[in-house]
Amino acid sequence: MSQNRDFAAVILAAGKGTRMKSGMHKVLHAIAGRAMIDHLLDSLAALHPSKTVIVAGDRHEQLRDALVGRNVVVALQEPQLGTAHAALQAEAALKDFRGLVMVCFGDTPMVKASTVQRMIDALDETTRVVVLGFRPADTLTYGRIITADDGSVRKMVEHKDADESERQCDLCNSGVLIAHSDDLWRLLKSVGNDNAQGEYYLPDVATQAIAEGARVVAVETDPAEVAGINSRGELAAAEAQWQRLRREEAMEAGVTLRAPETVFFSHDTELAADVTVEPNVVFGPGVKVASGATIRAFSHLEGATVGEGCEVGPYARLRPGAVMEKGSKIGNFVEMKKAILGEGAKANHLTYLGDAEIGAGANIGAGTITCNYDGYFKHKTVIGERAFIGSNSALIAPVTIGADAIVAAGSAVSRDVGAGDLRMVRAEQLVKQGWADRFHDTMKKKKAAEKKD
Amino acid sequence: MSQNRDFAAVILAAGKGTRMKSGMHKVLHAIAGRAMIDHLLDSLAALHPSKTVIVAGDRHEQLRDALVGRNVVVALQEPQLGTAHAALQAEAALKDFRGLVMVCFGDTPMVKASTVQRMIDALDETTRVVVLGFRPADTLTYGRIITADDGSVRKMVEHKDADESERQCDLCNSGVLIAHSDDLWRLLKSVGNDNAQGEYYLPDVATQAIAEGARVVAVETDPAEVAGINSRGELAAAEAQWQRLRREEAMEAGVTLRAPETVFFSHDTELAADVTVEPNVVFGPGVKVASGATIRAFSHLEGATVGEGCEVGPYARLRPGAVMEKGSKIGNFVEMKKAILGEGAKANHLTYLGDAEIGAGANIGAGTITCNYDGYFKHKTVIGERAFIGSNSALIAPVTIGADAIVAAGSAVSRDVGAGDLRMVRAEQLVKQGWADRFHDTMKKKKAAEKKD
Amino acid sequence: MSQNRDFAAVILAAGKGTRMKSGMHKVLHAIAGRAMIDHLLDSLAALHPSKTVIVAGDRHEQLRDALVGRNVVVALQEPQLGTAHAALQAEAALKDFRGLVMVCFGDTPMVKASTVQRMIDALDETTRVVVLGFRPADTLTYGRIITADDGSVRKMVEHKDADESERQCDLCNSGVLIAHSDDLWRLLKSVGNDNAQGEYYLPDVATQAIAEGARVVAVETDPAEVAGINSRGELAAAEAQWQRLRREEAMEAGVTLRAPETVFFSHDTELAADVTVEPNVVFGPGVKVASGATIRAFSHLEGATVGEGCEVGPYARLRPGAVMEKGSKIGNFVEMKKAILGEGAKANHLTYLGDAEIGAGANIGAGTITCNYDGYFKHKTVIGERAFIGSNSALIAPVTIGADAIVAAGSAVSRDVGAGDLRMVRAEQLVKQGWADRFHDTMKKKKAAEKKD
Repeated sequence: MSQNRDFAAVILAAGKGTRMKSGMHKVLHAIAGRAMIDHLLDSLAALHPSKTVIVAGDRHEQLRDALVGRNVVVALQEPQLGTAHAALQAEAALKDFRGLVMVCFGDTPMVKASTVQRMIDALDETTRVVVLGFRPADTLTYGRIITADDGSVRKMVEHKDADESERQCDLCNSGVLIAHSDDLWRLLKSVGNDNAQGEYYLPDVATQAIAEGARVVAVETDPAEVAGINSRGELAAAEAQWQRLRREEAMEAGVTLRAPETVFFSHDTELAADVTVEPNVVFGPGVKVASGATIRAFSHLEGATVGEGCEVGPYARLRPGAVMEKGSKIGNFVEMKKAILGEGAKANHLTYLGDAEIGAGANIGAGTITCNYDGYFKHKTVIGERAFIGSNSALIAPVTIGADAIVAAGSAVSRDVGAGDLRMVRAEQLVKQGWADRFHDTMKKKKAAEKKD
Repeated sequence: MSQNRDFAAVILAAGKGTRMKSGMHKVLHAIAGRAMIDHLLDSLAALHPSKTVIVAGDRHEQLRDALVGRNVVVALQEPQLGTAHAALQAEAALKDFRGLVMVCFGDTPMVKASTVQRMIDALDETTRVVVLGFRPADTLTYGRIITADDGSVRKMVEHKDADESERQCDLCNSGVLIAHSDDLWRLLKSVGNDNAQGEYYLPDVATQAIAEGARVVAVETDPAEVAGINSRGELAAAEAQWQRLRREEAMEAGVTLRAPETVFFSHDTELAADVTVEPNVVFGPGVKVASGATIRAFSHLEGATVGEGCEVGPYARLRPGAVMEKGSKIGNFVEMKKAILGEGAKANHLTYLGDAEIGAGANIGAGTITCNYDGYFKHKTVIGERAFIGSNSALIAPVTIGADAIVAAGSAVSRDVGAGDLRMVRAEQLVKQGWADRFHDTMKKKKAAEKKD
Repeated sequence: MSQNRDFAAVILAAGKGTRMKSGMHKVLHAIAGRAMIDHLLDSLAALHPSKTVIVAGDRHEQLRDALVGRNVVVALQEPQLGTAHAALQAEAALKDFRGLVMVCFGDTPMVKASTVQRMIDALDETTRVVVLGFRPADTLTYGRIITADDGSVRKMVEHKDADESERQCDLCNSGVLIAHSDDLWRLLKSVGNDNAQGEYYLPDVATQAIAEGARVVAVETDPAEVAGINSRGELAAAEAQWQRLRREEAMEAGVTLRAPETVFFSHDTELAADVTVEPNVVFGPGVKVASGATIRAFSHLEGATVGEGCEVGPYARLRPGAVMEKGSKIGNFVEMKKAILGEGAKANHLTYLGDAEIGAGANIGAGTITCNYDGYFKHKTVIGERAFIGSNSALIAPVTIGADAIVAAGSAVSRDVGAGDLRMVRAEQLVKQGWADRFHDTMKKKKAAEKKD
């Protein structure tokens, strides 16, 4: 997105978020596996802000911790005297900045960069303030934006102060606005707190501009984009809306979702065309799936790379660092972590592959466990091409199994196996004839005696 | 709920429930893991009824069996001559009772105690009968309650007998009613069966009271509360409605449900604030989860207690008696039953923990199985603090592993291991050099020969 | 369905299906686990067509491959000059056929046999062409069927050519039509391509018939039945609609679906009355479940037969050839393939049963693996009645365990066990006292040193 003027963002995040009933700062709650504030910062990043200031109150340390490495300044609002007062707390951090300033809200995180760009474009020479409006199905108690015939804003009015005709107007105020820094700080300072709550309200910036005789303009957008998130219910609704759009996008791109409503994406999931996803699949962050792969029901993928034509699941769990090469297969109740499964290799059942490299064409039997952890360090298992690991084996890392080697079923292998060799760890097969029959007799008597008691 | 008068409940459950197409009595079908009849009895319990009579017909033995231990009397209706006749079958069981009697339906199980209390309160000195009405979106063929200007009921009318103006009335009759025992039995006996079906109808109790010149009053409630359940479709709809309310309640209380529509609660699930529940989680009865715990996708919990900050799943199955202490972790494909996992202990993969006590900080390797059953009795496994159980081990109970002890991977341990000791059950590692190569040659020939045939 | 006249079907499937963004032919995409084209062919089969011709274009080889064994002819349309031109490509294959010909679409696969029968019945002596219409909630840009007072079709009109009053008409054209072969080929040849696209349009067959003075009649059906599938979104919508109907059908038949919206059926799933299905269950093809069985949450069944009163799951995976006899039980994280589980037998946890026969009353311990594959051939495991397989055992097939025999926990059994015998494969239990304590000391130092670096 091109942008021709200096731009800074002020994000208000000082509300107490009481309705969340949470020990965690409201804007750190996640949608699609990413904190609200990160959704907003990533959208704004497309506009290359010179500076971004987050105004925080309670739990500002949580915000600072979460935003380490992000190019943002956290300003403190204390005490909290209203949204206009909050916005003003960003002035110090922006004292060297001259240009457009957007004021928006950490709990309204789905505002798109393209919408902000429209607001920027609307702030032409004749216009002092641009506000962002929306027309919801139900106007509830939203503040209204009353426009004049020439399209400019005539009045900003709170619901409770609106008269009947003003309440008829369905253009509601999202609270988001843009103004030049020269105007914004002056206007913010001119806002009064002569109202029932005794607070300084941000929409009064527009009111003050109008009072100065300046032109104020409203840009309109979709209600879903400016829906505020004040409770876990609204958080879930935002997640649902995000997932709905993401699923449609996937299907548009040629992904088969047999039951879209049961597939959960992460913010960065990448699925190629002709990927098939069965019902009940969860994608955590960092997943890429190549064309022709099938993700079967009840699978859970995080940080995984799935190659062309692979089959995953049902009940496959791919964890970070799982790499499945072309045509390989991970079956039911199999977990894979920091492991590479070579082309055409298979691990079909009840297996744990951790810190492992598995060669092309290898076959990992049911119940195989790579014992990668000694309680202190992780160790690596290397399995050669076409090797055959018999069922119920334990591969005690560090260990290397050669190409074409065979590990007999039920073996606990702690030493390397050469290419083409057989390793068989097999204890004596003790037989006690008739022992089971005698055992059954004894136990049945014991059981009977117990019941008598 | 306070209640100032003697109160008894008559629950009609003698219908055949044909549309359920079930061998099980209709009112024993469950919503949120609890039989319909239990939902109703638990609601009524808040009103401390002196006596509760269930009038049953077919399959009354199933009811008697299911209600053992419940303070209810099952009265038999045989033959079945209508709902008024059914209610009258409760008279004998209530012959020593004098006070208010509520008549309700086993297949309308969601009636709230607060609604019944409102009915009780409405039965003042001037009123003989209180009926329960509702205003559905679609009045279908429900019977109507026609009220006079003073709010009293003027007429109860079946849909088929209603004239056009009466059908305009949208106050429908739920069938539930309350009257004093002195009035109820007399009114029930005065009801006739002069109608197409030749049945004695319960609403005629109100009609008879009106005919006697007595005042009848209607209390109104939400349609969802009095929805009758006559088919599996209606059962599923009642479950869906229950789950919807329960999910909203959980979110209101500060629980994060990333995809509320995929989380299924039981009637007694207890989740603290700041619990996070990922998509696709099923709670069976008897689950408590403390604050900060995360229940990951595809987990299934029954009779389990999850401590503060624990991580459960994905794909964790906690069964009755599973107790996870603070900060402990159960990972994928792990089942836990009658077992305590100490503070900070972990069982991350493919494990069965049954009849076990695991000390704080212990690490249970992938593929560990507690062998708790000998075919006759269950035995216990005790694992000390910070013990390390190597992967793919079988712990053959009864067995005790000491604190800080180590069991080597792949061991079948049948004897106790002392604190700080190593137990290693490891058979000879047999190597046959080149064996696998020779095996591959032989088998490939065999495979080729087979194809020729 | 009875049918009194010779009948042939022409299925148009030559569209490029661009919006699917797929390498697979559009009509091979599946609904409920069955390709669209198979849904359509199976519906038409009820009408016993003498011949079925599929007109294909791009990817016709894919169609030919997929339809091997089906009694259909694939005709090629090249170049593609419109739907009337496509229909005409079937003439050669039908040159010996004389009777009724239906023309329909491979991507409108849910047309019911009963609807086609109604069309056949409407093609009486006075009628030349029968078209299939529907009345959608939103008429969008569908072509309209304009009828006269006597119910016959007066005009077929494309949306873009329709005048205002024609657009008011909500009877839309599905494209499906029926005519006698004598009429159809002649009418198809008389269709021109004098339109913006320069294409030959199928609805013009009706237009031409009307122009000839013949009677054309419209049969109406449900919009869902003739919904075309042009994108993955529409495919998902068709699947959702199919599942919705199937779930209702199951509940009507006496199956309990606790959360119907989370249960996915296959086209041929058979569930008896009083089967209970918990949330999140996926049925692949070929599943039959007998009365009283419970399919618990997160289970996945394909090609499996579940007997009376069985318990399946949670997290059970039954694969093709899994047969559970009366009262048997498969528990969590258990996979079963080509295996018979005898009456009352149990495999409750973390087990793989492949190519196995398990006797009545046998108990398969947690973590048991049948090692059925040697990398080349599959081998069989036979377990006798009431046998007890201790946990974490590997049964290395071919192997037979006798009735009442016991395999001790943690055994890798490669030789047969006689009836009533005990087999115990148990290595030496090596104890190194204090070893673990010394190990902990060493490792802690190493860990500390590592942190310093």
